[in-house]
Amino acid sequence: MKPLFKDSLTVVNVGLAGFAANIAAAGGEAVGVDWQPPAQGDQEAGWALARTFADARVDDANRVAFARFLEANPVLRDVARAGDVIDGMASGRKLILHAGPPIVWPSMCGPMRGAIIGAVLLEGWADSADAAKRLVDSGRVALEPCHHHRAVGPMAGIISPSMPVFVVENTTAGNRAYSNFNEGLGKVLRFGAHSRDVIERLRFIATDVAPTLRDALATLGAVELKPLMAQALNMGDEVHNRNAAATALLFKRFAPAVLATAESRERAAAALRFIDANDHFFLNLSMAACKAMLDAAAGVESSSLVTAMSRNGVNFGVRLSGAGDRWFEAPANPVDGLYFPGFSRADAAADLGDSAITETAGVGGFAMAAAPAIVKFVGGSATDALHHSLRMRGITLGTNASFTLPALDFAGVAAGIDARKVVDRGILPVINSGIAHREPGVGQIGAGVTTAPMACFTAAVRALAESLGAP
Amino acid sequence: MKPLFKDSLTVVNVGLAGFAANIAAAGGEAVGVDWQPPAQGDQEAGWALARTFADARVDDANRVAFARFLEANPVLRDVARAGDVIDGMASGRKLILHAGPPIVWPSMCGPMRGAIIGAVLLEGWADSADAAKRLVDSGRVALEPCHHHRAVGPMAGIISPSMPVFVVENTTAGNRAYSNFNEGLGKVLRFGAHSRDVIERLRFIATDVAPTLRDALATLGAVELKPLMAQALNMGDEVHNRNAAATALLFKRFAPAVLATAESRERAAAALRFIDANDHFFLNLSMAACKAMLDAAAGVESSSLVTAMSRNGVNFGVRLSGAGDRWFEAPANPVDGLYFPGFSRADAAADLGDSAITETAGVGGFAMAAAPAIVKFVGGSATDALHHSLRMRGITLGTNASFTLPALDFAGVAAGIDARKVVDRGILPVINSGIAHREPGVGQIGAGVTTAPMACFTAAVRALAESLGAP
Repeated sequence: MKPLFKDSLTVVNVGLAGFAANIAAAGGEAVGVDWQPPAQGDQEAGWALARTFADARVDDANRVAFARFLEANPVLRDVARAGDVIDGMASGRKLILHAGPPIVWPSMCGPMRGAIIGAVLLEGWADSADAAKRLVDSGRVALEPCHHHRAVGPMAGIISPSMPVFVVENTTAGNRAYSNFNEGLGKVLRFGAHSRDVIERLRFIATDVAPTLRDALATLGAVELKPLMAQALNMGDEVHNRNAAATALLFKRFAPAVLATAESRERAAAALRFIDANDHFFLNLSMAACKAMLDAAAGVESSSLVTAMSRNGVNFGVRLSGAGDRWFEAPANPVDGLYFPGFSRADAAADLGDSAITETAGVGGFAMAAAPAIVKFVGGSATDALHHSLRMRGITLGTNASFTLPALDFAGVAAGIDARKVVDRGILPVINSGIAHREPGVGQIGAGVTTAPMACFTAAVRALAESLGAP
Repeated sequence: MKPLFKDSLTVVNVGLAGFAANIAAAGGEAVGVDWQPPAQGDQEAGWALARTFADARVDDANRVAFARFLEANPVLRDVARAGDVIDGMASGRKLILHAGPPIVWPSMCGPMRGAIIGAVLLEGWADSADAAKRLVDSGRVALEPCHHHRAVGPMAGIISPSMPVFVVENTTAGNRAYSNFNEGLGKVLRFGAHSRDVIERLRFIATDVAPTLRDALATLGAVELKPLMAQALNMGDEVHNRNAAATALLFKRFAPAVLATAESRERAAAALRFIDANDHFFLNLSMAACKAMLDAAAGVESSSLVTAMSRNGVNFGVRLSGAGDRWFEAPANPVDGLYFPGFSRADAAADLGDSAITETAGVGGFAMAAAPAIVKFVGGSATDALHHSLRMRGITLGTNASFTLPALDFAGVAAGIDARKVVDRGILPVINSGIAHREPGVGQIGAGVTTAPMACFTAAVRALAESLGAP
């Protein structure tokens, strides 16, 4: 008899529990270790992963990129007309920006198509919805991602030349980011509505709200956004799906200046009432701030840091710092959410919008522990919220001490998603999301939690491995 | 041999662990139960306690009182001159109200004496601090507790006739409560300062801030305070020592109306700037709302519900619903806190102010789970915050579903302190507190957590037992 079978066995069982069960059945003991193969058993991806982990250039690049992200200091610098400040719009060309990775007009989802028609009407490029559709069909309106123009927009994410935008500047590196204004809830352009009242509201934002805020900002000087977001995270917001505190703090900061600078009391009151009525007003600023922080970390050769996650209503797209302007795409995962009465998953558009830029920057779903109200809204508990935030530590390069989570004793949020860790550990970035109706103009029909699809990260890691060359 | 010593023993050991240890030493087993005698072993208090627990009238009365407290709906109804609305001031008599249970001028602590001198100067009853002191020494200024006039004030709690007050009304029962305006931090009257800038700020509040808010309120209609406090509790406030969210929400509500109604843009801007600069602005409204809720529960014969806890800088006082206007007093417990650099416990005034009305109403320290920033400030953790809120359930008649705690999965705050349970279980109400310097005018020198002294509750229970008559 071999010695192995005479001695008492000390067994550690890795992975499938069945082997340990057999040993136990034979009267032995085995310690089970929960394990699954890296890259979910995809052998090619596994090799690519191994290569990116073995190459010190990736870690070096990540240190550089992550430091640039952490050091970014986004401030609200100005309010301007999109056509005046966004690259490629100043030329007077018919350009409309949309959310997510690139997508052609015929492939777009209902809400995005509806919103583009609305933007054409707003710009006066057509005088009816039919005429607007024909104009876009003809190919004479350029449709490009916000992200290709340093911009971000929630849901359909439509930005056209006459719309006002927030100009956010990262004072550390000088890069700028833009976002449109939040219109409020209900029938709004970002959910695909383009009725007359929707267009009129957009005009009011452009002619009244934006200039009033711009004038106030001129006396306030640049408004630092990071401390404001940090405060809001300590007040129940995760600055993606909940912005009640951030909006109130912004309002409090602006009101005295608006009062001092507005053309008239009526204009001042109208602008303040508009902000007061919309607890999501800050969302677009949060997004632009996150975009400015992440753009600072973009373009670092060999870095596996994720610099953008975004949805166009069909595909989910991811960008890596070390992979230039490439998008790594996959069909969007469904949203695990609760629907408003009368609606169900069958009514839902696919995951949509640039707002996952907040999760890319370590807030939103990553900061769920800050906002238990969000998980409650989708049927979870305060403990679930803590777990979401803790789990994200497994896929990030570190934590961001500027954004703290009170319920975790003021630990920093997990931030700086490392695409390698996502693939290696099989942990997907968690994203808080509103759910849009798939028909244009119906609006929000629910909210929930979703994840970025694994295929985006696998593709990104493979591309990164390739760019590293032979080992 | 007796059967007891032949059989194997099943032992439950209640209280002192020494007995169980002896059994274990002899090779036996004993289950230990943590227990201590009710009323901390005070036999007379224990009998009184037993009598109040045995009498069904107490439970019946508590049900009535607690329901009145829960059903109260405090709204901000008006802003008025104290002398015009507070009972006993309208007569033109020289009356100054102070925090806590009654106390005579020579026994008052430094900050309270300093604040009273300031109020005399503000009223123009004397033209120098010395003259003011002589006037009060002469006995020609009446000094009475705020609580005797349906009012509350933080720290020294001084209210004199020309000061503006918030008029809060419980629309369910019609009772009203009053509070003065919060002056901000630094050298302020409520910490005993009475220099010229302090008096000038009080005049500005009376001539500019108060009328501007009063006019805005006239167009807003009554502002419901319970939903506002509930929102703030979901935004990191406990509405005693942290009021950042509540102040921002109040500001957001008032700003457009202030703009629409103010005499001039300058006045509107000045009033809004004053609120914007003080994150504690809402505290006094929170206190008046709590006072209105608790006064609704007062005067229910045989009820052991605590309707007021308050400190005059020397003694801590407690009132019971079933014990009329009586105060049950004891020297205040020290505050277990952190001091600002350069200060220590030797510099601290004793526990001071009517603001413990918030804990009496189930917020403040009772809602610590809502505001982990508060415990962090005094060296605790988020878990400590949860424990404070959970422990308070042991001494209350129930929870208040109107005020929820996100970190405890939106459970209602423990509310309606039952004096019997405090004495029976030896659990003291936890109170969040600022710490004042014992010299007038220095201001706040720290913050911390303190408890109401047990002797107040023991005395209250004994009085209640007496009032029930022979068993």
